[in-house]
Amino acid sequence: MQTENLLQQIAFIKEIDKLKYIQRKTKLFNSDRHENDAEHSWHLAMMTIVLAEHSDKPIDVLKVVKMVLIHDIVEIDAGDTFIYDTIKNHTNTDEELLAAQRIFGLLPEEQAKEFIAIWQEFEDGKTDEAKFAKTMDRFEPLLQNTSNNGGTWKEFNVPYQKVYDKKVAIKDGSATIWEYAENLINESVEKGILKK
Amino acid sequence: MQTENLLQQIAFIKEIDKLKYIQRKTKLFNSDRHENDAEHSWHLAMMTIVLAEHSDKPIDVLKVVKMVLIHDIVEIDAGDTFIYDTIKNHTNTDEELLAAQRIFGLLPEEQAKEFIAIWQEFEDGKTDEAKFAKTMDRFEPLLQNTSNNGGTWKEFNVPYQKVYDKKVAIKDGSATIWEYAENLINESVEKGILKK
Repeated sequence: MQTENLLQQIAFIKEIDKLKYIQRKTKLFNSDRHENDAEHSWHLAMMTIVLAEHSDKPIDVLKVVKMVLIHDIVEIDAGDTFIYDTIKNHTNTDEELLAAQRIFGLLPEEQAKEFIAIWQEFEDGKTDEAKFAKTMDRFEPLLQNTSNNGGTWKEFNVPYQKVYDKKVAIKDGSATIWEYAENLINESVEKGILKK
Repeated sequence: MQTENLLQQIAFIKEIDKLKYIQRKTKLFNSDRHENDAEHSWHLAMMTIVLAEHSDKPIDVLKVVKMVLIHDIVEIDAGDTFIYDTIKNHTNTDEELLAAQRIFGLLPEEQAKEFIAIWQEFEDGKTDEAKFAKTMDRFEPLLQNTSNNGGTWKEFNVPYQKVYDKKVAIKDGSATIWEYAENLINESVEKGILKK
């Protein structure tokens, strides 16, 4: 039984290597090099363990770490959708659900169920853990874009209001981080790297 | 106080972005592309949450995840040392300790101490958590090299005994994973991708 589990788990471990090839629109800090989903997921996991004290609600840190580590794995099949895409909705498409079922489905049954449930909980964004995970996911590219003189906001002409509407989700996880983030957004307008 | 902590934490979060530029000798699965340290750390964290049930001893999974997420951060200053390097010893050099103090030292004092202690615990390899983290760190490149027709073993003429001597540490964390790993090593010899 344990060996059978291990074989399924190794098939999954090999499959998710593909996340390293999924390129995001966002670039690394002070850089022209695009970030990939594996690097992004590592960075969010680091942010989670470093910033957990700022969560407004008590959270199960391991659960949030699991969420951010796996949240983009569906993109192996479904691809990365730009958060400011006006045609395709970012979250919870049928395509992503099929991807979750196929990829997490490589794991032993009980574990597959657990991972799909955690991914779904993140997508739904309703629990305290999911809210803090979303706070991390919105905060990292804000730090990157401001370090890159506007980054994807400038590259794709994303105006202030659209940025604000996406970033305000940070507030649902942490008042302290939102205060910092809101200041960063306002400063970006003052500096002219984000247009109002 | 909370805001002051946040500013120090953000400085750390920006600094560790550099891990994405540290290239390992090992290549991705079935690939010619080198893996970087951030991708590697993400993969070990995924392996930890997927394979934790195979640990011979009960482990604090969050602690192991923290270990593997941060274990290579010192390489931002100290660089990646190839595990089969015959001149430079891989672990616990003075250079790595200085790097840990500088980089984790960007964090608020208590947190810096916690992260340095976790890194040191991993390096020492004596606790059950450190042993399982080392099991993950030795197992991933074994899977990669066998998927790459010998990978770095072939590229750098690393013989069976050297591989065995490094990989046997897998046994300290998990008998089940070691049984699988030892078979893989023996099969590699039979296939001629690892020389005895």
